Amino acid sequence: MSSNTAGQIIKCRAAVAWEAGKPLVIEEVEVAPPQAGEVRLKILFTSLCHTDVYFWEAKGQTPLFPRIFGHEAGGIVESVGEGVTHLKPGDHALPVFTGECGECPHCNSEESNLCDLLRINTDRGVMINDNKCRFSIKGQPIHHFVGTSTFSEYTVVHAGCVAKINPDAPLDKVCILSCGVCTGFGATVNVAKPKPGSSVAIFGLGAVGLAAAEGARVSGASRIIGVDLFSSRFELAKKFGVTDFINPKDHEKPVQQVIAEMTNGGVDRAVECSGSIQAIISAFECVHDGWGVAVLVGIPNKDDAFKTLPINFLNERTLKGTFYGNFKPRTDLPNVVEKYMKGELELEKFITHTVPFSEINKAFDYMLKGESIRCIIKMEE
Amino acid sequence: MSSNTAGQIIKCRAAVAWEAGKPLVIEEVEVAPPQAGEVRLKILFTSLCHTDVYFWEAKGQTPLFPRIFGHEAGGIVESVGEGVTHLKPGDHALPVFTGECGECPHCNSEESNLCDLLRINTDRGVMINDNKCRFSIKGQPIHHFVGTSTFSEYTVVHAGCVAKINPDAPLDKVCILSCGVCTGFGATVNVAKPKPGSSVAIFGLGAVGLAAAEGARVSGASRIIGVDLFSSRFELAKKFGVTDFINPKDHEKPVQQVIAEMTNGGVDRAVECSGSIQAIISAFECVHDGWGVAVLVGIPNKDDAFKTLPINFLNERTLKGTFYGNFKPRTDLPNVVEKYMKGELELEKFITHTVPFSEINKAFDYMLKGESIRCIIKMEE
Repeated sequence: MSSNTAGQIIKCRAAVAWEAGKPLVIEEVEVAPPQAGEVRLKILFTSLCHTDVYFWEAKGQTPLFPRIFGHEAGGIVESVGEGVTHLKPGDHALPVFTGECGECPHCNSEESNLCDLLRINTDRGVMINDNKCRFSIKGQPIHHFVGTSTFSEYTVVHAGCVAKINPDAPLDKVCILSCGVCTGFGATVNVAKPKPGSSVAIFGLGAVGLAAAEGARVSGASRIIGVDLFSSRFELAKKFGVTDFINPKDHEKPVQQVIAEMTNGGVDRAVECSGSIQAIISAFECVHDGWGVAVLVGIPNKDDAFKTLPINFLNERTLKGTFYGNFKPRTDLPNVVEKYMKGELELEKFITHTVPFSEINKAFDYMLKGESIRCIIKMEE
Repeated sequence: MSSNTAGQIIKCRAAVAWEAGKPLVIEEVEVAPPQAGEVRLKILFTSLCHTDVYFWEAKGQTPLFPRIFGHEAGGIVESVGEGVTHLKPGDHALPVFTGECGECPHCNSEESNLCDLLRINTDRGVMINDNKCRFSIKGQPIHHFVGTSTFSEYTVVHAGCVAKINPDAPLDKVCILSCGVCTGFGATVNVAKPKPGSSVAIFGLGAVGLAAAEGARVSGASRIIGVDLFSSRFELAKKFGVTDFINPKDHEKPVQQVIAEMTNGGVDRAVECSGSIQAIISAFECVHDGWGVAVLVGIPNKDDAFKTLPINFLNERTLKGTFYGNFKPRTDLPNVVEKYMKGELELEKFITHTVPFSEINKAFDYMLKGESIRCIIKMEE
């Protein structure tokens, strides 16, 4: 596939957030060509993640506007900048909010995906090459978001943040692997690693928690205990393998004690996806002594301290954290797509809504009302 | 080897602690024959561990006296009780303060050594079979300590707490594997598992910490950073592979920051052997993000809480605890003895003193003055 737009500025539609919490406005933006080490993608499908909403609301951080949000998406490479060798125009690709430079100690470690160069930075609104924006409207720069800004028909991304995937994969489904689903799924399959027949507790049954449950189901866990403050979530969670449900509000005892009583001493694994500090402590304390492993995914308020008695560790429990499910974007994402293609990982059940790009603000409404798990936004409609 | 004392009460010498903190008294005690599932051992060598001193001082727990302490030892099976099949008279053996019943979920788990039946119980002063003592002096029962009570020429131990070892192994050396050395060595080789060329921080350079350093040395760690409040310990620690030393008192910054600066972001592994809550927190926070693993061995005061910011976990750090270095006594101890026999694990350097049994109180003095690492007590002298 050749591209006759390579090297040119592209004018296209983008959903611009001009102010915190105000509806996005579809605008015509100018998208500069990719510089060295960058890629310009034509986005076909994007989906809304809670992180977009969090930074759009800008209640917990310094606001940075105007900005183009969006970080879960599937698209096609339009053109590549100098020195980019692993991608070419026409490749099907998923942009990711965190990257893989391939050269730093983290990229060289089998265990880490926290690339020194391309690690997520939610405060940065520019490209790392030149600290400038590739988006503008009549000369006014429009900020990037986590290096992806997929709420635009075209976007520029660092090549280290772009995974090349099987061109047969349906982009309207696999686009949700860019963030939430991989985060939860990987937390279970890459980090918690439950054995077949084991018990797993999942704290928080949003998209990430449901993906963690899906990971437990795929791993062959025989008992998957969902914990959430909204009992209405249990019915849906059953589709993701959840067998038991606990609403902490229904119990006087701490959840960890309820779980210990249900499981003869504790679950084999726990995955915490809510970010509540109380849930973080419960998730650790609910795993069985001797072999229990708890994995933290959800991000708490920055001043909330984790606190427990050291004997809980000394009795041979393990606590570890994960970021993006420990997946290295470029290396691992193509394989996750293949898992979907083989029917091992089910993605359809995460997708509850679909809207045309022109109605992107509806996706925000669905999420704010707690109605959606994932809402796919079709860029060409 | 036949035993003509089998089934008989044996009269022998034991060092009895009559009162908290008072010198032990060598007494003639009567040792009853082993009951079903028990073994009577002739102790040849025993060594003093800090845990004996802690419970002898009885400052932190309910006192239980008169009692026979001692839990690091090597001996020979004198006779076995009904149903004991893995040991016979004449076998060389190490008694251990924690056991392996072979049947509970922990024994059936590859990951745990916290046997449900024979897990350490420092409050119990009797045998679990009948809740009675096998030791007496003129009819007065003398309490057991952690099921071993090796400060006696003969002792009765649950067979699940006795490891059969190579009869060629020198008991005056391998006796120290019963507790401290395995605890530290296993924490490193079984749990922290540093890779060749990696960096390891060891907090607390007593016997357990030095054994943890020995584990790092044997694993091929290239940098072993010892942390201790007594700088005089560094010289000795070099023999155990320690390459760098930090005394937290010499720095205004927290130790974790000093270590991060020395190691370009943190060590690959940390093993905490001091039990100080501050050291526990530092040991966790000094490991590198992305792949760092901290292992807790030292037991803090029971009300001291571990406290950290969850982001330290979320950046892909792991914290886990271990007990007795995750060794299963019966299954694994024979292999540790073989490591010593092959020269892979060095034990001689732990042994700083030797005393005859009649002078056992000297071993307490050496330890209380901080002069000894391990003092071997020869029972036949």
